[in-house]
Amino acid sequence: MNLLLLRSDDFLDPQHVRLCGQRLDHINEILGSQANDALRVGLINGLCGTARLLSINSTEATLHVTLDTPPPAPLPLTVVLALPRPKMLRRILKNTAEFGIKQLHLINSYKVEKSYWQTPALKPETCKAYFEEGLIQAKDTVMPELHLHKRFKPFVEDHLPTIIDGQQAFVAHPYNAEPMPSPSTEKRVIVIGPEGGFTDYEIDLLQQQGVKTISMGQRIYRVENALTRLTCQLSATPHG
Amino acid sequence: MNLLLLRSDDFLDPQHVRLCGQRLDHINEILGSQANDALRVGLINGLCGTARLLSINSTEATLHVTLDTPPPAPLPLTVVLALPRPKMLRRILKNTAEFGIKQLHLINSYKVEKSYWQTPALKPETCKAYFEEGLIQAKDTVMPELHLHKRFKPFVEDHLPTIIDGQQAFVAHPYNAEPMPSPSTEKRVIVIGPEGGFTDYEIDLLQQQGVKTISMGQRIYRVENALTRLTCQLSATPHG
Repeated sequence: MNLLLLRSDDFLDPQHVRLCGQRLDHINEILGSQANDALRVGLINGLCGTARLLSINSTEATLHVTLDTPPPAPLPLTVVLALPRPKMLRRILKNTAEFGIKQLHLINSYKVEKSYWQTPALKPETCKAYFEEGLIQAKDTVMPELHLHKRFKPFVEDHLPTIIDGQQAFVAHPYNAEPMPSPSTEKRVIVIGPEGGFTDYEIDLLQQQGVKTISMGQRIYRVENALTRLTCQLSATPHG
Repeated sequence: MNLLLLRSDDFLDPQHVRLCGQRLDHINEILGSQANDALRVGLINGLCGTARLLSINSTEATLHVTLDTPPPAPLPLTVVLALPRPKMLRRILKNTAEFGIKQLHLINSYKVEKSYWQTPALKPETCKAYFEEGLIQAKDTVMPELHLHKRFKPFVEDHLPTIIDGQQAFVAHPYNAEPMPSPSTEKRVIVIGPEGGFTDYEIDLLQQQGVKTISMGQRIYRVENALTRLTCQLSATPHG
């Protein structure tokens, strides 16, 4: 655990926190921490800092908390992704938070299997748990926002223009594509298709909204690897 | 299946191939191909091309094969990686082949659990199967080479100098690190530590061999994501 994530209702007063349940078990069983030990903490959607363990037993721990450091810079990239199969979705939700992506739009596409929309991984509380895992890994506190769009054409025509809002927008597509642009600290939008790619019709609709096709090279990557690669290739954060 | 991988012993003569078993089942059940259909093929460690199905039934298929295209360019990056836990190792083996890494050295480190070296995923035939999955995904034919080094110090002192051989070599490490260099088409070596990182002693030994510490930024990435990010950030292939 690289960061102990705190919620506002954990606080007894602005500097003291009481923990029980899963996080307490982790501190006891995995970290093996004892009174006076220091832990790296962060408040969900708030600052990071340190905590000193005042007391700990098998039912609760109390901590003295100092929150004084901003979380890592967000990735200036909005991701629009054709809903992947559930197993891959789970890893992608974790990665979204781990990479600092703060806006994730999961969309339908011709090659997305209808059953994927029924996965329990899309339940808000399950998504949140995956996002928390990614935040803890990356020592981040800022929850990504997840948006679901079950119809492709209305999404592209009615929502995408508002999302793009003057930013550069790209779709990874092997045909008639421009070379990969350089990483930028400017806000950008990346659209990533399903396994098998978008149909020509879908690419046309995206292009009508000003989305530019870019090539990832000769190799075809699995969707989660495409996402990881594109976050590096398109976006730079001020502090790396 | 983006590519049907052929082995030299599949060939009846230089232009004809007979398939049975798993690959035949895939053609029948997943692709649903019929006589006269075209398939994208590649010969392991050889050229890519196309094949026309001459005949197919439930026990065998015969194909007319034309091999005329080189596989995608390899990634000019040798990867030295502290052996990850087995579940992650399996994905990393696939990714190694998918990304075009051709030299993978798995090494020991203080924070590598001894039991990891016993995983069935390290059996040569199992590794080969994961590599094949990655090659098929990326439409590549060139098998990565896997090297196992169960002792850290002898690896760093006796093998690493030969691997580096005048190339730039980096280790991802958050402390006293230089900023990430730009991607290059030059051959490079990247060393990636275990979860929890290398010890100071290990970093010292690496630095004595000319390995430079570079920072991945404020976030801490899971090992498989660190590998994917570093392949993008350090290496460029001539055709993207």
